[in-house]
Amino acid sequence: MLVTLTTDFGGGSSYVAAMKGALLAVNPAARLVDLSHDLPPQDLVATAYFLADALPWFPSKAIHVVVVDPGVGTDRNLLCAEWREQHVLVPDNGCWTPLVADSDCPVVHRLTERRYWRSEVSATFHGRDILAPAAGHLSLGVAPAQLGPPVTNWQRLELRRATEIAGGVHGEIVIVDHFGNLISNIPARWVTPGMTVKVPGCGAVNLVRSYGDAEPGEIVALIGSSGRLEIAVVNGSAAAQLQLGRGTSVEVRGRAG
Amino acid sequence: MLVTLTTDFGGGSSYVAAMKGALLAVNPAARLVDLSHDLPPQDLVATAYFLADALPWFPSKAIHVVVVDPGVGTDRNLLCAEWREQHVLVPDNGCWTPLVADSDCPVVHRLTERRYWRSEVSATFHGRDILAPAAGHLSLGVAPAQLGPPVTNWQRLELRRATEIAGGVHGEIVIVDHFGNLISNIPARWVTPGMTVKVPGCGAVNLVRSYGDAEPGEIVALIGSSGRLEIAVVNGSAAAQLQLGRGTSVEVRGRAG
Amino acid sequence: MLVTLTTDFGGGSSYVAAMKGALLAVNPAARLVDLSHDLPPQDLVATAYFLADALPWFPSKAIHVVVVDPGVGTDRNLLCAEWREQHVLVPDNGCWTPLVADSDCPVVHRLTERRYWRSEVSATFHGRDILAPAAGHLSLGVAPAQLGPPVTNWQRLELRRATEIAGGVHGEIVIVDHFGNLISNIPARWVTPGMTVKVPGCGAVNLVRSYGDAEPGEIVALIGSSGRLEIAVVNGSAAAQLQLGRGTSVEVRGRAG
Repeated sequence: MLVTLTTDFGGGSSYVAAMKGALLAVNPAARLVDLSHDLPPQDLVATAYFLADALPWFPSKAIHVVVVDPGVGTDRNLLCAEWREQHVLVPDNGCWTPLVADSDCPVVHRLTERRYWRSEVSATFHGRDILAPAAGHLSLGVAPAQLGPPVTNWQRLELRRATEIAGGVHGEIVIVDHFGNLISNIPARWVTPGMTVKVPGCGAVNLVRSYGDAEPGEIVALIGSSGRLEIAVVNGSAAAQLQLGRGTSVEVRGRAG
Repeated sequence: MLVTLTTDFGGGSSYVAAMKGALLAVNPAARLVDLSHDLPPQDLVATAYFLADALPWFPSKAIHVVVVDPGVGTDRNLLCAEWREQHVLVPDNGCWTPLVADSDCPVVHRLTERRYWRSEVSATFHGRDILAPAAGHLSLGVAPAQLGPPVTNWQRLELRRATEIAGGVHGEIVIVDHFGNLISNIPARWVTPGMTVKVPGCGAVNLVRSYGDAEPGEIVALIGSSGRLEIAVVNGSAAAQLQLGRGTSVEVRGRAG
Repeated sequence: MLVTLTTDFGGGSSYVAAMKGALLAVNPAARLVDLSHDLPPQDLVATAYFLADALPWFPSKAIHVVVVDPGVGTDRNLLCAEWREQHVLVPDNGCWTPLVADSDCPVVHRLTERRYWRSEVSATFHGRDILAPAAGHLSLGVAPAQLGPPVTNWQRLELRRATEIAGGVHGEIVIVDHFGNLISNIPARWVTPGMTVKVPGCGAVNLVRSYGDAEPGEIVALIGSSGRLEIAVVNGSAAAQLQLGRGTSVEVRGRAG
């Protein structure tokens, strides 16, 4: 059974290893898949975008353990959220909720049944002591309802959305990827060919269909693989060249705008 | 069969990939689990803490390949250490020994049987040419005794221990984690509620049970997930805020201290 | 079935996760092995050395997905190259060709059969939308010939080779590894004991067989694990100490040279 792991622990950390051990101690046959351990520490917004861009591609039955947990040691809950036949085990901090459409109707259980936890639970590492063993049991066939009672209330994270303005759309950069591409929160459906894109310190940026439609070194705007508008430098880094990052505002305007 | 990999090769390195290939060439069905490839280069103390914090969580039968090997190319031995029904394949440099209690009585074999190695052994990469194929054979059911003769002497790494001082305990920071938490070598059993903690350039730090017992931004001391005292900034980085790192001394004193 | 993944996406990226999801969506039983996701962005030469140093160690039947793709969005092809009973799924940019000897006679197919792709293909992420699902199908037993027609022409990447000069060899540093070792393109067969090695800003460097033949801190030259000459500082970083990097010229001369 597939179990994926997503954390902000850092690749050099023994925390990742300990969590894997605790999971495999419950189900030595679990097939672990690392998604990332390099999410920005305690950054729920970055985690939300990560999950929204990654989890929809997985097959049903996949179990996802997500540990970005600024509230560890408080009395926040831990959840098992069932969504499109996948399960997400996660602290109740909302990071998984932007993944879920209103129509998805997730079934959510609160982890309360201590028999699916490690017998000793530390005050600072619930990923290892609760989420990982619970995921191990889930991968062995334990039903979510056995992990604890259903809940209908949980934290929701509202990501800032792009908004319509006169003659166009206003949004912002929400992710800078490893290539220096500046990825916005403006969805593809609001962008049509012929529109122009503006970011601070830079004239109108041409909207292209793909990197191949421009020359190396050229600044372009295009719909990226996540279905959102991004600003890129062909074979280069837009972040480095334009000195822009998360939070930068982006405007898209029609010809008449 | 589970085989974990721990190295200081760096995530971008072809050495990790080559070692995985050499292991899978022996046993294509081995289930590889990465623990970390980002240990500080050739740092046996960091490796020792990593292993002590990670390996106890794994199930029996797990095979661990650990390649942090400042002595590669010297005549140091390579070992297979059996410990609580797990096996650690590792250069004889002591990094695994702090993991093992005196009462554990590890059974250790020296890797000498060349038929379990690659046919050509380089002078600089015994991880790929000896440890990985030996782990592959072990995962196929070869007994440790077939890998080479038992030995009763091996390098031991002594980690600096915290010491009792008048009215308290003196120790030091031994790990700075990805969150900037400063993790000491002072074990939980020497720390009791009401004690105060001192680090250079900072007044008495309050001892709390968990991050949830303090406000974001507050400097606290607590028993971390490894069972040792750590200094943390709630939802922040103690390392960055206090400008402290490995080797910094830490004192814990009772009320009367 | 083993499927390895090699990219320049960066470990923190959701692109790696999305690609894994897309592959596992086709074959949930595929056994994924990460080789690296930290190759230098869009660097085909670094990728070529990586693959040449890593893939030969893998067993036959392994499937390798390699996504370093500066041409994404152009009309470059995507290939399935069969080489020594392994398969490499890769954009047609030549990065895999230095791996293959002239005598290897790779069988190469062009990926054209859309039924083995995702139903929607983005303009910017063919790793997720084409290569990963094609690898999933291949791991399920689909034959390379089903993925598309055979081709006999593909991009070739010529790496700069070391050359013979009067009394010796001239080459250059092509990789700086995580330890700061400076790895050249000079093959072992051109280097014999007694030769001396020269790099800028440094007297003659002694050629040794192994790190153990010199003292910690000493600058040495030796044949590294990839079968090429490298400059190293024993238990230190040659790159940091000598302030040298990729492209630096290296000369090896005989005693009389």
